[in-house]
Amino acid sequence: MENEILKYISKYVPITKDLEKAILESAAIKNFPKGTSLLKEGNLSNECYFILKGCIRVFFIKEGEEKTTEFYTEGQAAIASCYGKKIPSEQYFECMEETVASVGNPELEAEMFQKYPQSESATRVIAEIVMVNLQDKLNEFKISSPEERYLALLKNRPELIQRVPQHQIASYLGITPESLSRIRKRTMSKI
Amino acid sequence: MENEILKYISKYVPITKDLEKAILESAAIKNFPKGTSLLKEGNLSNECYFILKGCIRVFFIKEGEEKTTEFYTEGQAAIASCYGKKIPSEQYFECMEETVASVGNPELEAEMFQKYPQSESATRVIAEIVMVNLQDKLNEFKISSPEERYLALLKNRPELIQRVPQHQIASYLGITPESLSRIRKRTMSKI
Repeated sequence: MENEILKYISKYVPITKDLEKAILESAAIKNFPKGTSLLKEGNLSNECYFILKGCIRVFFIKEGEEKTTEFYTEGQAAIASCYGKKIPSEQYFECMEETVASVGNPELEAEMFQKYPQSESATRVIAEIVMVNLQDKLNEFKISSPEERYLALLKNRPELIQRVPQHQIASYLGITPESLSRIRKRTMSKI
Repeated sequence: MENEILKYISKYVPITKDLEKAILESAAIKNFPKGTSLLKEGNLSNECYFILKGCIRVFFIKEGEEKTTEFYTEGQAAIASCYGKKIPSEQYFECMEETVASVGNPELEAEMFQKYPQSESATRVIAEIVMVNLQDKLNEFKISSPEERYLALLKNRPELIQRVPQHQIASYLGITPESLSRIRKRTMSKI
């Protein structure tokens, strides 16, 4: 499974044998049972997760209601906004399924950057790619109708719709479960 | 004005004298008159802009209608999704005011990273911060009502509301100009 991490990084930058060894040695692979809460509102976040298998849901609780904003699955990194800072989280991270992840922390990162400057270069490239993807997602969310958002999800992450409850998908798309149900009926014929 | 760039970078990482000199020597400061189109749909993007003075609006044209997704102002970097890639832009970049910016390109970046590894480290730190900010913005946009989005804009970027037309602010908030007008009236008493 560690090879998944190498595969992910090597998509963006070449990895020397030295760095490969360091990544494999430092990768702390952990198993989290379904339902594990990895982060809660008010807590500090000192871990980030590169998901090898499973799904982490990100949500907020607003006026007593859960608002799902993200689902991280295989090949994605789940990092809280307050990761490595000394400020309490506003978010919750929860394992929707049994989840296997490579777990990082700020100290490990700093050590890797110092020992292998190439790893900082890789992180820079990946951070820039994630940055662009997020900007695209924000733009898309702003300019799309709820129906367009649903069709895009169906096209880009069809498996997600099978893996998580529909009311969480609705929240993720910024609509009510009733609207999602109407959109699903309406779009059936278009697919 | 070049000092603004140093001030921005040094907020995140220490700058050596060598790097300071390199940044000042390589910073290509350019002046763009109001209304300048810096990027159009279908064109390649080979420049990024760190804004020293002025405002760049990002928009898409969808079914003949302009959809504004971002306003970059002083101290922000405007980078298109397709920057440095060989794919045509879907976005437009337009100067809303006379704009002064430090203009970068991928070749200049690569040269800087090679000559001054410290500059890549700075870029990594900044990319991670921008990444977190974007994730926060996307989450906020998903979980907020239009009224909450307007009040947040009023609080965080009050000057923007004076600088750009109201219909573009409405589009940026993902609502119609009529809704924005109603929200403004309704919230007058709350501010």
